[in-house]
Amino acid sequence: MSISKDNFGLVCLKGAGQVFFMENALTGALFFIAIAYASYDTGQWAITAGAVLGVVVATAMAKVLEADPDSYRSGLFGFNGILVGVALPTFIAVSPELWFYIIVGAAISTVVTSAFSATLTRSWGIPGSTGPFVLTAWLLLAGAYSFGSLHVVGETPKLATDYASGAAAIPGALEFGEIFFRNIGQVYLLGSWVSGVIILVGIFIASRPAGIAAIAGSLIALATAIMMRADPSVVSQGLYGFSPVLTAIAIGTVFLKPSGPVAAYAVLATIATVFLQAAFDVIMAPTGLPSYTAPYVLALYLFIAPRSRATPHPHKPVQAHFLIDDKS
Amino acid sequence: MSISKDNFGLVCLKGAGQVFFMENALTGALFFIAIAYASYDTGQWAITAGAVLGVVVATAMAKVLEADPDSYRSGLFGFNGILVGVALPTFIAVSPELWFYIIVGAAISTVVTSAFSATLTRSWGIPGSTGPFVLTAWLLLAGAYSFGSLHVVGETPKLATDYASGAAAIPGALEFGEIFFRNIGQVYLLGSWVSGVIILVGIFIASRPAGIAAIAGSLIALATAIMMRADPSVVSQGLYGFSPVLTAIAIGTVFLKPSGPVAAYAVLATIATVFLQAAFDVIMAPTGLPSYTAPYVLALYLFIAPRSRATPHPHKPVQAHFLIDDKS
Amino acid sequence: MSISKDNFGLVCLKGAGQVFFMENALTGALFFIAIAYASYDTGQWAITAGAVLGVVVATAMAKVLEADPDSYRSGLFGFNGILVGVALPTFIAVSPELWFYIIVGAAISTVVTSAFSATLTRSWGIPGSTGPFVLTAWLLLAGAYSFGSLHVVGETPKLATDYASGAAAIPGALEFGEIFFRNIGQVYLLGSWVSGVIILVGIFIASRPAGIAAIAGSLIALATAIMMRADPSVVSQGLYGFSPVLTAIAIGTVFLKPSGPVAAYAVLATIATVFLQAAFDVIMAPTGLPSYTAPYVLALYLFIAPRSRATPHPHKPVQAHFLIDDKS
Repeated sequence: MSISKDNFGLVCLKGAGQVFFMENALTGALFFIAIAYASYDTGQWAITAGAVLGVVVATAMAKVLEADPDSYRSGLFGFNGILVGVALPTFIAVSPELWFYIIVGAAISTVVTSAFSATLTRSWGIPGSTGPFVLTAWLLLAGAYSFGSLHVVGETPKLATDYASGAAAIPGALEFGEIFFRNIGQVYLLGSWVSGVIILVGIFIASRPAGIAAIAGSLIALATAIMMRADPSVVSQGLYGFSPVLTAIAIGTVFLKPSGPVAAYAVLATIATVFLQAAFDVIMAPTGLPSYTAPYVLALYLFIAPRSRATPHPHKPVQAHFLIDDKS
Repeated sequence: MSISKDNFGLVCLKGAGQVFFMENALTGALFFIAIAYASYDTGQWAITAGAVLGVVVATAMAKVLEADPDSYRSGLFGFNGILVGVALPTFIAVSPELWFYIIVGAAISTVVTSAFSATLTRSWGIPGSTGPFVLTAWLLLAGAYSFGSLHVVGETPKLATDYASGAAAIPGALEFGEIFFRNIGQVYLLGSWVSGVIILVGIFIASRPAGIAAIAGSLIALATAIMMRADPSVVSQGLYGFSPVLTAIAIGTVFLKPSGPVAAYAVLATIATVFLQAAFDVIMAPTGLPSYTAPYVLALYLFIAPRSRATPHPHKPVQAHFLIDDKS
Repeated sequence: MSISKDNFGLVCLKGAGQVFFMENALTGALFFIAIAYASYDTGQWAITAGAVLGVVVATAMAKVLEADPDSYRSGLFGFNGILVGVALPTFIAVSPELWFYIIVGAAISTVVTSAFSATLTRSWGIPGSTGPFVLTAWLLLAGAYSFGSLHVVGETPKLATDYASGAAAIPGALEFGEIFFRNIGQVYLLGSWVSGVIILVGIFIASRPAGIAAIAGSLIALATAIMMRADPSVVSQGLYGFSPVLTAIAIGTVFLKPSGPVAAYAVLATIATVFLQAAFDVIMAPTGLPSYTAPYVLALYLFIAPRSRATPHPHKPVQAHFLIDDKS
């Protein structure tokens, strides 16, 4: 039995994979397993349900809006939706209105994805990446504070650094291995290191260079955060690592052609992302909102924008299969 | 006696009408009556004076700067100025320096309108709409806190949601009719439902579809805010409705060709604007600044940007008479 | 002995000069003397060391990234780096990690400069100017609060207006001359009026019109701030004047061809910048971050963007030697 490339379920799985830039349904299936494992571990099954709902609604919305077919098939209209679907139940208690909120939010994420593509990508070749998720999920979580039908739960403070305590000593026995994998799992807002292992396996299945970049990104982030003496309780949750992991993969392997100079450029971008994470923790703290992947998004935009002008010249600067094509 | 299309007074009246996208001097005149009625009702005649000053200065500034003549004649350089002129006396006590502030602010609003047009509209076909007003009035009101000659009055808190109390019960006898009209009047920062009635009449005189969209927008906003259990005291002031009303008109009738799919798209955008209003109430609260029409502006930009790519395909996507033309 | 235009030291000196738009190594040398004098006056030699490190790293980074050669030679990749190098030791206590932070920060400033150039300048002819410095230094200073190895010192509050006290009376014997020169020195974050004198001499050496614009900008800012009754203690430190001085030079002499209408436009922009300074003082206060030159940057972007459409028509709207050319 052959499955069409337009098969809706397949497109949704690819959408899950695209959170890590992987157009691979098997990778996406492993990512769902990673999410489900974390739900099993914590009992928060609403997060897995939200993930499914988010990717389904966002992908269906792209279909309804007659979005670019190639981008649709690649899952590029699903990955922001799945992240919205994971984030909202992470920070908002379950209620009937929450599901309505997720549905509308995932649909909006597709509109926002298209808006970023029609502006940043079209004019400047900057991929929207998870920027639409960050914007949509910030606004929806902020809005939740205004609605009596939605109750923001205590997870948020855990994501914000206690930035006054940055001077505390690094504990003697940090479980570095677990942090290493949490740095990967937290891209999906998962605090489980086992989920991080599953996700890393999924990345390697789709792309060995991306897997190596993920490992390098996690290690660089860990070393930088410890050297700068970031708050150990935040470091140990993997919250200093997930954005740098994405930066390392994106700059090192996805959007620029891998080479020696590009690797050096990716290392600088990865360190910069650790600094940006530290900055966003401070800037976002008064708002009661987590920074999500904003540090990665800002680093990506800034380090990709000058591509043709000031960066080491790759022969094929953008992998066409990822960038949302502009057919108009 | 015939009046030239270049008649300055006529252009100013059209500028007032363009707050609701209507290039119609009679509509603009009715909007002035709505403002004057609210001033009469509250005794705050400075608001009406500010409106006149704002639209006159902003329009004259466009003349001096030799802005695009067609856009000028259509009143497109006046509607941000009139809103600046209404907003500043609403939030700042009368003093001699206030009038200087309004004059400079209205002149700046024309520069900002041109800047938005030269970037957002030129590159991406995104209309600036009331974005220049929001930016200018945010900065001027924030600046007022720094100046001893300007005294920010207690109106501001009324615009910000008491976002902790969102869970309070909806009162038994909300005067839905009054809220319905306040949702329209608050576009001009007017809390009077009578002003809302006059404005709605003005809209219908210029465009029946726009009037119907305004009604639909007000009803959808009211239903969504109640369903999500937003703070009743904020809902009843019409503060959850004015941005959605603008979104419903803009997406449903002005910038996309009306059709079934476009109507559905406009409904989604209108609900999204209610969520954005909830978000901005929370985000803006610490700043001491109202959100103005920022929820509408953000929704408009995000839902219009993907027009050519991901939205239902209208034959004539932008009504040329509104968009600020780019002749260069 | 002739010195090549590619001489690295010469390019670094020009980078210092470009903070005031001057591609002149002698001017840049005088600016370094102004910085050194302030360090001598306060004993904070780390600021001078940071300035040298910042411009060297940022310029070298441009070389490594093979940035546009003409822009490189003109010092356009150095001026944001030198400002990062001055700002970080001004607000962060000296530690080994600080120097690492400055090196990475200056390198990032070159990437951000390229990113602004590839977007704002390429699409809309808007010069990035000191925007990359503002963004980079905001993020790095915010991040410093998260890192135990970096200690934010008490300078920050001095930069933020005590915005509640704006109504205080202007003291009888303000030393207007000192404030006049501090308005210029503070562009380099220097509170010394002697440094301001040296900088003004440097500007006049490179361009008489720019020097006159600097004088006019400082006077207009002083008059506007006093008329609006801004906090005298902030005014007297020169903190209401440095952004308007840059606006006056940029709009009046650098980016538009000087003429009568352009002079009037520059006066409006300069007054607007004073209002923006007042606004940013309020907006930034809760973040613990200074506004740097953000008021100037925003005014520049808004007043330059509409150049071709709504501003008085100069024959040669942009002086090609400053704008970062787009060769691609």
